[in-house]
Amino acid sequence: MAKKVAVVLSGCGVFDGSEIYESVITLLRLDQQGAEVSCLAPDMEQMHVVNHLSGEVAQGESRNVLVEAARLARGNISDLAAASAGDFDALIVPGGFGAAKNLSDFAVKGADLSVNPVFLDFAQAVHRQGKPLGLICIAPAMAAKICGAGTECTIGSDAETAAAIEASGGVHKPCAVGEIHIDRERRLVTTPAYMLAGRIGEAAAGINKLVDAVLELA
Amino acid sequence: MAKKVAVVLSGCGVFDGSEIYESVITLLRLDQQGAEVSCLAPDMEQMHVVNHLSGEVAQGESRNVLVEAARLARGNISDLAAASAGDFDALIVPGGFGAAKNLSDFAVKGADLSVNPVFLDFAQAVHRQGKPLGLICIAPAMAAKICGAGTECTIGSDAETAAAIEASGGVHKPCAVGEIHIDRERRLVTTPAYMLAGRIGEAAAGINKLVDAVLELA
Repeated sequence: MAKKVAVVLSGCGVFDGSEIYESVITLLRLDQQGAEVSCLAPDMEQMHVVNHLSGEVAQGESRNVLVEAARLARGNISDLAAASAGDFDALIVPGGFGAAKNLSDFAVKGADLSVNPVFLDFAQAVHRQGKPLGLICIAPAMAAKICGAGTECTIGSDAETAAAIEASGGVHKPCAVGEIHIDRERRLVTTPAYMLAGRIGEAAAGINKLVDAVLELA
Repeated sequence: MAKKVAVVLSGCGVFDGSEIYESVITLLRLDQQGAEVSCLAPDMEQMHVVNHLSGEVAQGESRNVLVEAARLARGNISDLAAASAGDFDALIVPGGFGAAKNLSDFAVKGADLSVNPVFLDFAQAVHRQGKPLGLICIAPAMAAKICGAGTECTIGSDAETAAAIEASGGVHKPCAVGEIHIDRERRLVTTPAYMLAGRIGEAAAGINKLVDAVLELA
C-alpha cells in the first residue's frame, strides 16, 4: 500500500510563499519512493506579495495562498480546511517565507509566533495520531507549537533563529545542510535546506534524506 | 572548467509561464552535474494570468515574465535582452504554456507561430555558434524557427501538436515520456516531459537524460 503524504504549501516563491525548489524536490522524492501525495494549502490572503526580481514588497498587490500554491501543484491542490488528518500517513511542510508569513507569523513575531489555526489544527491532529512530520528550512520554527515544548528540531546554524526557536519552547540542534535531525519520541524530521544551502543540490541532499526518514517512520 | 548553461524561463506556472517541475528538475540536474547556470527571461508582460486553482484567466490582472520567473530562480535571474550567446556553452528551455504564450504565440497561432524576437535572437545566436540546445515539453514547437526547416524534435505523441510542428517546418519524431530525441546535425535535444508525463518522476526521467545529453554535446 502506498503511503499517503500531505504536503502543505504556503504560496509560490521563497520570499512570500513556499520555497519552490524545496517543494519540488520534496514532491519528486515522494513520487520516486512510491508515495501517494496530496498538496494542500490554506485559502487565505498572503501576508504580502514580494517582487522576487527587486526583493521589494509589491505595494497594493494581494494574492491568495491557495491560488498561488496551485501553481506549484499544477492545479492539483485542495483547501487545507477541508482535509482530515485521518486520511494521511504523514505530513511534510517545505520552507520559504510562506511558512513564517502565512502558515505562521514567525517572520514578524519571532518567539512570540502564532500558527495559522487551520494549519495548526491539521498538523496537531496528524501529530496526535502518532504519524511522522517533516518540516523543512524555516518551517521548524513552528515545531514546538505543533509537537509541544521540548521538541527537538533544526534550522541549521543561524544563531538568532535558533534562539527564537528555543524561546518558543523548542530545542534547537545544529545540523549541516545535507543532513537531518530526528526527534524520535515526537516522530519529527527537520532539515536546514535553504537556511544553509548555497546550491540546489545541497538542499536536495538534505530533503531527500528527510523524505526517506518520514516515509520510514510512516 | 564548468560548462556555462543558460536556462530561459517564461514565467512561473504551467498554464501561463514556465512549468515549475520541469524548470526545477532541469536546474537540479545541471547543478548535480557541475554546470554553471544562469537563469534568463524576457522583460515583458505575460500573455495573460491564469488562476491555477480554477484554470480560468484572471481578468484584469497582469504580470511580468521576468518578475514572475524570478520566483523560479530565487531572485537570481537576468534580463534576456542583456545576455550574450558568446557567454554560454548551451541553452535549455523548459516547457509550460509560457513557451507557447510568452516566448512564442504557438498556443494561439499553431503552425503560423512567431517567436519573441529577443528570445529568437538569443537562441539563434547560440545555435549558430554550434552550441547545443535543449527544448522541453512544448518548447520544441519553436525548434524549426530557431534551428531551421527540417529540424527534428519531439513533443511526445500528440497528433495535433505534431502536425502543427510539421506544418511550421519541423520534423516530428514520436518519443516516450522518459526518453529524448537528438537531432545530431543541429545539436538539438528534446523530450516530451509534461506533454506526456502523468507523474513528476516520469518527467524527471526524460529531463535528466536531456540535461546529460546537452552537457555532453557542449
